[in-house]
Amino acid sequence: MPRLRLALAQTNPIVGDLEGNSGEIVAAVRRARDAGADLVAFGEMALSGYPIEDLASRPSFLAACRRRASALAAELDAAGLGDIVVVVGHPDGPFEPRRFTTSNAPTAIAQNVASVMQNGEVVARYAKHHLPNYSVFDEYRIFIPGDELLVLRMRGVDVALIICEDMWQDGGPVNRVASADAGLLLVINASPYERDKNEVRLPLVTRRAVENDTCVAYVNIVGGQDDLLFDGDSVVVDRQGRIVARAPQFVPHLLVVDLDLEGATVHDLPENVARVQLAAPETGHGESGVPPMTGDPGTPRAEASAADGTPSALTPITADIAVVPDELEQIWGALVLGLGDYVRKNGFGSVILGLSGGIDSSVVAAMAADAIGASKVYGVSMPSRWSSDHSRSDADDLAERIGLHYETQAIADLVTPVEEQLGLDGIAAENLQARIRGIILMGLSNQRGHLVLTTGNKSELAVGYSTIYGDSVGGFAPLKDVPKMLVWELARWRNLFASRRGETPPIPENSISKPPSAELRPDQTDQDSLPEYDVLDALLEEYINGGLGRTELIARGFDEATVDRIISLVDHSEWKRRQSAIGTKISRTAFGRDRRLPITYRPTDVA
Amino acid sequence: MPRLRLALAQTNPIVGDLEGNSGEIVAAVRRARDAGADLVAFGEMALSGYPIEDLASRPSFLAACRRRASALAAELDAAGLGDIVVVVGHPDGPFEPRRFTTSNAPTAIAQNVASVMQNGEVVARYAKHHLPNYSVFDEYRIFIPGDELLVLRMRGVDVALIICEDMWQDGGPVNRVASADAGLLLVINASPYERDKNEVRLPLVTRRAVENDTCVAYVNIVGGQDDLLFDGDSVVVDRQGRIVARAPQFVPHLLVVDLDLEGATVHDLPENVARVQLAAPETGHGESGVPPMTGDPGTPRAEASAADGTPSALTPITADIAVVPDELEQIWGALVLGLGDYVRKNGFGSVILGLSGGIDSSVVAAMAADAIGASKVYGVSMPSRWSSDHSRSDADDLAERIGLHYETQAIADLVTPVEEQLGLDGIAAENLQARIRGIILMGLSNQRGHLVLTTGNKSELAVGYSTIYGDSVGGFAPLKDVPKMLVWELARWRNLFASRRGETPPIPENSISKPPSAELRPDQTDQDSLPEYDVLDALLEEYINGGLGRTELIARGFDEATVDRIISLVDHSEWKRRQSAIGTKISRTAFGRDRRLPITYRPTDVA
Repeated sequence: MPRLRLALAQTNPIVGDLEGNSGEIVAAVRRARDAGADLVAFGEMALSGYPIEDLASRPSFLAACRRRASALAAELDAAGLGDIVVVVGHPDGPFEPRRFTTSNAPTAIAQNVASVMQNGEVVARYAKHHLPNYSVFDEYRIFIPGDELLVLRMRGVDVALIICEDMWQDGGPVNRVASADAGLLLVINASPYERDKNEVRLPLVTRRAVENDTCVAYVNIVGGQDDLLFDGDSVVVDRQGRIVARAPQFVPHLLVVDLDLEGATVHDLPENVARVQLAAPETGHGESGVPPMTGDPGTPRAEASAADGTPSALTPITADIAVVPDELEQIWGALVLGLGDYVRKNGFGSVILGLSGGIDSSVVAAMAADAIGASKVYGVSMPSRWSSDHSRSDADDLAERIGLHYETQAIADLVTPVEEQLGLDGIAAENLQARIRGIILMGLSNQRGHLVLTTGNKSELAVGYSTIYGDSVGGFAPLKDVPKMLVWELARWRNLFASRRGETPPIPENSISKPPSAELRPDQTDQDSLPEYDVLDALLEEYINGGLGRTELIARGFDEATVDRIISLVDHSEWKRRQSAIGTKISRTAFGRDRRLPITYRPTDVA
Repeated sequence: MPRLRLALAQTNPIVGDLEGNSGEIVAAVRRARDAGADLVAFGEMALSGYPIEDLASRPSFLAACRRRASALAAELDAAGLGDIVVVVGHPDGPFEPRRFTTSNAPTAIAQNVASVMQNGEVVARYAKHHLPNYSVFDEYRIFIPGDELLVLRMRGVDVALIICEDMWQDGGPVNRVASADAGLLLVINASPYERDKNEVRLPLVTRRAVENDTCVAYVNIVGGQDDLLFDGDSVVVDRQGRIVARAPQFVPHLLVVDLDLEGATVHDLPENVARVQLAAPETGHGESGVPPMTGDPGTPRAEASAADGTPSALTPITADIAVVPDELEQIWGALVLGLGDYVRKNGFGSVILGLSGGIDSSVVAAMAADAIGASKVYGVSMPSRWSSDHSRSDADDLAERIGLHYETQAIADLVTPVEEQLGLDGIAAENLQARIRGIILMGLSNQRGHLVLTTGNKSELAVGYSTIYGDSVGGFAPLKDVPKMLVWELARWRNLFASRRGETPPIPENSISKPPSAELRPDQTDQDSLPEYDVLDALLEEYINGGLGRTELIARGFDEATVDRIISLVDHSEWKRRQSAIGTKISRTAFGRDRRLPITYRPTDVA
């Protein structure tokens, strides 16, 4: 059986940073070449970052991506890395518009492609067939689907190349791969993390291998892009669906693996499948019993095919098989990377946040320290006349445990003049306190250049239990998609993780165990206004992720009055959510582009 | 030729308000019946409001819509309105999911349908074929496309029924109408207003009439739904494409017209076209030489068809042909209705806004008074130590001209304590002033229940020339899609409009003519930081609506340094826009769901 040394490069691109991303790609190709790989594959849109959203409708952006892809091929060659086969995803265009209508409405002019590079040139391109247009994805909006499958023949093996969603579709390109008898199915991806996604992603990779009796190599990008977090977790499975190599989550990685693959057969290809013959890299080590396809249409590099079939001189390697951590560690890792990448990719040197001594701000502070280092985290305690003693002492304790910068700004003298001048009381006065805190954080941010972190969690955001322009101020909300019960779980997990490693648990025990309170009036607790959080979170899970209606929720055993109140709160808080900071998506239905609902909404006669 | 009396009912639905919208429909049907109409058609989703966004993925919501449609048919019959044929748009489902992938990702379970009602029942349904998924539309995300065309035979005429986007697609259902030889093409729509849309919409209606040698009746909903404004402007054109009836923009309207139509021929239908025979209404007045299609499959009401062919006893009517106002009046009308409907549909009794004496807040105040009446508009002057005398006197003047509620809240005593406690200066101190104003407006809003209006314009929002959580606070931003130059034009137009009607021009001349300034430091003007607004707006138009890149903009004659600076400002203000209030879309590319771009974006190597 022919042997192929395959490298999967899990890089962390920044959207738009064609130069920087190219640099990362060149560095990874060099490492792959040094490791003796024949073929190195990068993730979907690794050159441009993903998702590019409506940048796909700008001709200048598409042209720049295409230019950069060609330049990259040339640069690789100039750097002596020309012979290794490189597969890189990027947007391509502008193409003749796919007109949606006869109006002058926007049209799609881009394709989502994988470019295959060798010896200084882009020798082949594959355009994604299936364009996801659900959840956070808007690809049908912006891309023209491809209609031709691509098979790369190298070292006597046929490698079929598809992109992300193509694998998820039954009856799509993946099925035509079977008829093409490919020895390897290479899937390049930009697949965002979700809590339970591993439970569907890996079984699907396995299924595709078994269905098609072929090895499957799955390469994903890694890193945060706004609300999305790509977890990497690139994997290779054999024809029986067994994992033979796996990259770790949440870090860039080069995964190198030797694969003994079914040799290519010389036969007619199914309709709409192009085959391209590639030269064997000089460092190659493959074995091949199949002659090169000289004269085959679409074989730009046939002249180099004499190098094919050279047996390897390299020592066999043992591929990494990363162990997937438990769920809480995964979630923590996702949130830390999402936060850290937002900070780094947007050029911030530090973050600032309010520390109330409560669980949310404590967890965010610990997360920020894990993401960018405690020396770049600034905490501000902003006690009011209603703040408990423990709110200050717990915040002090947290700051000391983490070792972050810490200051106190009392708000009473700032609140009173506004309260008195405007004659505010009740909720208006409570909100005022939160807004003065917002002003303090934004003022310090403007003065010193910190990014403000919002500490609200998903449960609060769902029911609107926060003050807009108050505790909601900030550019990034790490807990935006984390329900309150999970915030507690994460806090306990993070402390346990520290203890296990002999480190100081970052979060004060009292912040975890005390009843949650906004402390905007004397003796207030969250449960004055809301059901117990276990009930609230269970209800929100069914309403938001499950899409159940009132009648169905009551049938599940939730109290009728609670259902009515919570549904109403959720529906009428949409305007606040629309103005809220972004935060890392970890659930199936995160607030934001994942869940698009009207603000103006008056449900009557809806059960 | 058979004559049909057609009514187009341009109603203003509220999303989700199935009960309220039904009530409006029943009232309109009664008026249509009283006017002797045979057929009354409502807009797309007139029963549910439009767009319903991801409500389309909730089975309970879809089931409620379907139930309500059946109930509506029964209620019409019970009210003695059963014989008139009623066409109403609504979402329908839940259907067997259209699976996008093999994952547990969301699936489409809804259709966008038109129900045809008569004698207490829904006698036929048409499902939209073409699902717009560009600009503000996400229909491919949420709907299952239909695959059968529907022809209604009544009074000897074949009426083909399609929905909105179906008309915009060449080669779509509209072409099959030609083969079905329909005498009337009825198109129900939810088509949002855009400045130049009339220039494409009406010519297209005309073209479809001429292409298919058929009358075309185009009915649109009216009213504001979040950022979208439906302008109505329902129209009927004859076989030569001449306008024979036209409803006014921006108001609900019942348009009734007598049409002499090509009689139906008895012939085989093209594939995938269903024909339904309807009874002639008792008040009918049509003429028909074509026998009813007894025994035709899909003819549920054939038993009633003996009533067909009764000559009319009604006096012929003269249809309204509304005159389309000039562009500035149209824009003003759109913005006033968008604002007014946001206030009304979300249950607010009043609005509050800061009055700086500048052009933006003056225009918004005038618009709010036009939308909901001056007695519901509360203006607050919030002078600082840097405020000019004219900022106060112009605001005073405005308040008096409009007759709105007016108060002054000086900010100096509220700003100083914060400034001193935090040690703020420079931009941080400037932003603080704006944020104290935001706190005042939000405090008064919370205390008294007003909706806060944000007065920023599109040019400011584009370049981020505003203070987040400061002057940007509020639930609705009437000028969000209005560039600064257009704000001035609208101000001049509104004053002229008042003068022509012998009314007091609402906007002080000095607010229009003085140089714009944020007045956050002494002698500041906007042009300290920005190019002249005529240049800025021209550049923004090409960059945002035109999608041009840097090189192209420079080639159009814009100064290179200006291009670089403005592009960078626009690209890096996305995070502020994401947290901004919604406002009425009037351009081809409004900020919001119309223009989806990343926050994290580092363009390098992009020309």
